[in-house]
Amino acid sequence: MNFELTILGANAAIPAHGRFPTSQVLCVNHRYYLIDAGEGVQIQLVKYKIKINKIHAIFISHLHGDHYLGLMGLLNTMSLRGRTEPIYLHAPKGLQEIIILQLKYSYTVLNYPLHFIETNQEESVFLFEDEKVTVHTIPLTHRIPCCGFLFREKAKDKNLIKEKIPVDLSVAGRIALKKGEDFEHNNQILKNEDYTHVPNKRRSYAFCSDTIYLPSSPLIKIIQNVDLLYHEATFMHTDEKRAAQTFHSTAQQAALIAKEANVKQLILGHFSTRYYDLVPALEEAQEVFPNSLLAIEGEAFPINE
Amino acid sequence: MNFELTILGANAAIPAHGRFPTSQVLCVNHRYYLIDAGEGVQIQLVKYKIKINKIHAIFISHLHGDHYLGLMGLLNTMSLRGRTEPIYLHAPKGLQEIIILQLKYSYTVLNYPLHFIETNQEESVFLFEDEKVTVHTIPLTHRIPCCGFLFREKAKDKNLIKEKIPVDLSVAGRIALKKGEDFEHNNQILKNEDYTHVPNKRRSYAFCSDTIYLPSSPLIKIIQNVDLLYHEATFMHTDEKRAAQTFHSTAQQAALIAKEANVKQLILGHFSTRYYDLVPALEEAQEVFPNSLLAIEGEAFPINE
Repeated sequence: MNFELTILGANAAIPAHGRFPTSQVLCVNHRYYLIDAGEGVQIQLVKYKIKINKIHAIFISHLHGDHYLGLMGLLNTMSLRGRTEPIYLHAPKGLQEIIILQLKYSYTVLNYPLHFIETNQEESVFLFEDEKVTVHTIPLTHRIPCCGFLFREKAKDKNLIKEKIPVDLSVAGRIALKKGEDFEHNNQILKNEDYTHVPNKRRSYAFCSDTIYLPSSPLIKIIQNVDLLYHEATFMHTDEKRAAQTFHSTAQQAALIAKEANVKQLILGHFSTRYYDLVPALEEAQEVFPNSLLAIEGEAFPINE
Repeated sequence: MNFELTILGANAAIPAHGRFPTSQVLCVNHRYYLIDAGEGVQIQLVKYKIKINKIHAIFISHLHGDHYLGLMGLLNTMSLRGRTEPIYLHAPKGLQEIIILQLKYSYTVLNYPLHFIETNQEESVFLFEDEKVTVHTIPLTHRIPCCGFLFREKAKDKNLIKEKIPVDLSVAGRIALKKGEDFEHNNQILKNEDYTHVPNKRRSYAFCSDTIYLPSSPLIKIIQNVDLLYHEATFMHTDEKRAAQTFHSTAQQAALIAKEANVKQLILGHFSTRYYDLVPALEEAQEVFPNSLLAIEGEAFPINE
């Protein structure tokens, strides 16, 4: 079962140096979740061969244009491409009004149901679940209401030790064991630990789009131990003041957050147009947190089971 | 003095085959007028080395997403790039409301004054002028209110025949002759035709974005004899029915309009994603109107004086 992040864009504010604004796709067991939708997201989805109508749900962190201005075009294209399955759109207050107004003036009726779910930027709350993942919000501190998203695989069933299972054990018995229960069979108690393997760990991904540096904050607990953390790194350490003024972080600060939260891997993104070469930002982060990487468009970051 | 159209995108509905949705720039004597602003227009402007803050005025034909969804990003970028000069935005009813709503939810105050001028899609009316051009609307018939734009160079001063001008002729006298008047000098009437060359013709460009085929209609008179006509050619003749159903035109129909209006040159654009190769569409048009060309991104179409 795959659990893989693909970067579609990771530039801040203005597309530059061939880099698109923020958007990315998390794929869990062949189901796609779109996270932010900067201008040109539909172009990037085509470029990286991700079928747009495989997207199941959309998550928008905040309403700065570089994080959502590609959404309306994508929603139109989904409809023109014949989508009929509903889409679940999680976004701050305002986006529903913006989309409905744009649909009104283009006299458009989408081909599929579009469900709006308003996000809460104040605290970490449950937002979404399906049979594959749960998603909680991650409160961030930016110039406007903004939250990130924590994706976590659903608890998995335990694996049966096939060679030990009695051949006449009923389906109900097998399900009970998979769920971690003991089960009575032919007047004998089958103890769960004797008949099952421990399931693989639930994989997790935390997306922190735009935020001021938040050390020793509730953020740390929310993203503690995640497998993969994307944290904005708009500026480098030399521009630390500018970062604070604009409610952004530096590459070093992103790494300090990754270290404090004990995550496994950090991806830096949301690069200012002032930086053409991103390697110095990567090196700055790696000094603090060696397992840091750059969010490069088209790159995939798989998390193994 | 240059008068040149540059294509930034000419695809219909959905970006495809590496082609961006509709947008183009008319440059008159180094002043830029943006016509439509499909998603990614700011990326295309950078790609083709057109400085975004040289854009003086913007003209949006209608509110289908493929003609304006790049505008909000462009307006944001103009502000981030330090623009302070006003921008004049000519667009159908609704775009002002959409932009103001998006500015509100992103808590953005643009750095420059943005003036909205609502277009009239019902008749051809005067819309805009500066010292270089006048612009009139071109009513079109599409699924939603839509108009094209007719750009015409301002009437030019006549050129003085320098070797004939008395050396002691005053500035007022020179201006009067340039304006086509006779002028009394040293008790002698300088007859205008003896002292001036006829100015070059006023160059003109007509943009017809999205429209059903409108032969023998008021459109013909409005665009009569223009130097350059861009006419949508969403479909080919084999899809003529589909064109009529969706209020679009075929390449052949665009050529018939060019022929009927006796224009000098036709540019075909707004190609459906169903066509990868556009040469057959070009050939279809050239059979009717030989001086037809394709709107290819990055191509410039200069009109000589």
